[in-house]
Amino acid sequence: MSPQHTEFVKRNEPYVAGFGDKASLPMPPSKKLIIVTCMDARLDPAAHLGLKEGDAHVIRNAGGNAKDELRSIIVSQRLLGTREIAVFHHTGCGMLTFASDDIRSIVKDAAKGDTTVSARVDAIDFLEFKDLEESVKEDVAWLKSEPLILPETTVTGWVYDVNDGKVTQVV
Amino acid sequence: MSPQHTEFVKRNEPYVAGFGDKASLPMPPSKKLIIVTCMDARLDPAAHLGLKEGDAHVIRNAGGNAKDELRSIIVSQRLLGTREIAVFHHTGCGMLTFASDDIRSIVKDAAKGDTTVSARVDAIDFLEFKDLEESVKEDVAWLKSEPLILPETTVTGWVYDVNDGKVTQVV
Repeated sequence: MSPQHTEFVKRNEPYVAGFGDKASLPMPPSKKLIIVTCMDARLDPAAHLGLKEGDAHVIRNAGGNAKDELRSIIVSQRLLGTREIAVFHHTGCGMLTFASDDIRSIVKDAAKGDTTVSARVDAIDFLEFKDLEESVKEDVAWLKSEPLILPETTVTGWVYDVNDGKVTQVV
Repeated sequence: MSPQHTEFVKRNEPYVAGFGDKASLPMPPSKKLIIVTCMDARLDPAAHLGLKEGDAHVIRNAGGNAKDELRSIIVSQRLLGTREIAVFHHTGCGMLTFASDDIRSIVKDAAKGDTTVSARVDAIDFLEFKDLEESVKEDVAWLKSEPLILPETTVTGWVYDVNDGKVTQVV
């Protein structure tokens, strides 16, 4: 597949043409909200939650793991005034399909005995999970217990279903 | 401000109603592309890059820092076949406005001498930056040099302008 970046400027043009008054949006999210969700290509959190530019911080990584994003959550809360966090994991997530040792083996096999690569990948916890709802509950429990998260934060946990686009509250 | 999560199900309904055939989308991103960008509320990367569900992994954190997301990038490349990474930072980013010691002081002052909090926050590098374009170049250079990133990856670096919605390639 040829690189996609050569298309970015052209694909950006309609957005620029319809940009309107978005330049006046302030930096702090108007809904004082952080969405933590997965990087999965099938997810468009702004679309499926009806959010518009300016509403919420959106943090995304493999699995929608909150613990992996403490740095960003602190910045959001302490500098930009957010006071609510909603964690979304989703059905059909890749993080349900492997163990950290599986991916370490893939990386080491490809590196053909490179000891730097082996040592580096062995040090990474890939934060996979076996039970979808349990993984949401664990993230919410962690957010509620972590001393660096403001205690007055409203924290909820959700599942997004890639089969019908629905969101369902877990906790 | 009252919690926002009570609105999620209602706000999700139009998306569910128009979900169409998205259930058939495969897990691997069709464009073999990762977008790394900031959590900033003013950014809607799917909208400003004309991406639709299924196209690309989207990783977001404070600043759009790539190094902070090595775990997720490895999962994306090794398990889901992506071979291109585009890093976006943006004008007016909060990460240009403070130093790690500033935010550490804010957290410690609020914790009123709690030594657990002090020790934990002192251990976090908040990954702020002083020069926008330089920060993009640094992330791209890191992605090209990191042994755990596949050497055949196409890596580009971009700036998104919150004043007009335009994307501009830096490197």
